[in-house]
Amino acid sequence: MSSVGTAATVAPDRYPTRLTDGEPTPLARVDPVVWGAAPGPVSPAAIEGYDREGFLAVDQLVPAGEAAELLTEAHRLAGAARGRDERWVREPAGDEVRSVFEVHRISERFAALVADDRLAGIARQLLGSDVAIHQSRINLKPGFGGKEFDWHSDFETWHAEDGLPAMRTVSISLALTPNFTYNGPLMIIPGSHRTFIPCLGATPDGHYRASLRRQEVGVPDHDVIARLAEESGIRVLTGAAGSATVFDSNCLHGSNSNISPFPRSNVFVVYNSVENPLAPPFAAPEPRPTFIADRDPVQV
Amino acid sequence: MSSVGTAATVAPDRYPTRLTDGEPTPLARVDPVVWGAAPGPVSPAAIEGYDREGFLAVDQLVPAGEAAELLTEAHRLAGAARGRDERWVREPAGDEVRSVFEVHRISERFAALVADDRLAGIARQLLGSDVAIHQSRINLKPGFGGKEFDWHSDFETWHAEDGLPAMRTVSISLALTPNFTYNGPLMIIPGSHRTFIPCLGATPDGHYRASLRRQEVGVPDHDVIARLAEESGIRVLTGAAGSATVFDSNCLHGSNSNISPFPRSNVFVVYNSVENPLAPPFAAPEPRPTFIADRDPVQV
Repeated sequence: MSSVGTAATVAPDRYPTRLTDGEPTPLARVDPVVWGAAPGPVSPAAIEGYDREGFLAVDQLVPAGEAAELLTEAHRLAGAARGRDERWVREPAGDEVRSVFEVHRISERFAALVADDRLAGIARQLLGSDVAIHQSRINLKPGFGGKEFDWHSDFETWHAEDGLPAMRTVSISLALTPNFTYNGPLMIIPGSHRTFIPCLGATPDGHYRASLRRQEVGVPDHDVIARLAEESGIRVLTGAAGSATVFDSNCLHGSNSNISPFPRSNVFVVYNSVENPLAPPFAAPEPRPTFIADRDPVQV
Repeated sequence: MSSVGTAATVAPDRYPTRLTDGEPTPLARVDPVVWGAAPGPVSPAAIEGYDREGFLAVDQLVPAGEAAELLTEAHRLAGAARGRDERWVREPAGDEVRSVFEVHRISERFAALVADDRLAGIARQLLGSDVAIHQSRINLKPGFGGKEFDWHSDFETWHAEDGLPAMRTVSISLALTPNFTYNGPLMIIPGSHRTFIPCLGATPDGHYRASLRRQEVGVPDHDVIARLAEESGIRVLTGAAGSATVFDSNCLHGSNSNISPFPRSNVFVVYNSVENPLAPPFAAPEPRPTFIADRDPVQV
């Protein structure tokens, strides 16, 4: 490519996906995992672990009392569903609210949280730049039947459907209720962030509506997932309310159902580097709504 | 009741369920948990734990090599589905075999296993009598989407639909693959075997066909389950292939889905005391098929 880089120049797609023919051959990641070496809240040993495994478990990112306050605010938001506002997402088989998106724009409490140095400082340190909010949401996996999320790489979807060019985001999942092994906790395959798994199938128009309830396109090949899990195992991220998981956008992750009586609720914030602004989608007819992938993101 | 006890005498129902009106008030168990005090393979301390918690985790009931052989036999059986034979049960949304019933009658290998003193000896010791096979089956929860089993008491169903009079059985779930926290392992609420939770709703005719895939009648009240789990927690039964869980028929148990690549397969054997033969169903129009509840059981 000898063209001069301008906003209109289409960069080559380093992570082709939603393939309509051929085999989905896994590709090696071409982006760094840790983008900076500046000091910050994350210790050198923890940075090394994040680089190697693709995630970091933090025992107490906020105190239990603060997590309880955030949970109260999350419940208030869930109960405040406005008519047909798509930011409120319900369980696949039911009316219960599963997620609320863009909480940093609809709640002062969550706006303060996403800008808080305890969270944003981690992202700035790992991404080596200033950061903006790509997405925020609360997930309220109910007890007695909260459904599973199948294995996926967030990056695959964000790249294909939102135009995220590089793997240069940090996601933070902050537990608002205890995450036990048995209430559908986050599971990650360590080291999977180093492999990009192209997915088969063109993205249908308006696909996001169904995919927020249950993904059907953008599903990685089961043989590849099995091989990675056999090599590296599966890490189950449990912890008290206030604990957090910091993870790379390309980690293969998912969660099982929750038949236990105990809801598994968390707030999920995605920080994108300001040097990695959204392009047009790499493999979808049109961008998804901004509440899922902010095209004019709030810098924090 | 002053009538002379004969085979034709209808005993009072000590565990009324499938109620069509009123509140499902939990009842205290009226049967013992441990029926004998004879020596056997279970240590006095383990018997005490079984009495208190309603179950017993056994690290290695059979060696790993033997578990591997049994798994091979289980796969052979699963692949040998015969036309519309109802003993082969498939996943709710798919064609994959989830369970095969009556394996002690269709496989010499499993016939030998259920008669083996390592299993039957435990049952005889805890039940204080000779024992017969009430039910046997293999469960092959597949990877990548094996479904959950909601909370239930086996006894509630066996009493209502099969006419099991007393809580005098021992169930043994023998792991044929590793049971991790993340592949849908058995979960039990310790101590729940001491409470009988009547369920609401009359049993429809032929209910068993649907209930083997997903239970809709015989579902205990969520508030009661939540209270018991808050009081006593939830025990997740993990272990290597060859490990086992021995449990009382009235334990509240269930399992989450399995999105992991690793199947969770086990063989499940229910020993009933020969002094507790099946009566007519206590709350169903007709008995279920004998492959689910053997009315002419093999004594072992």
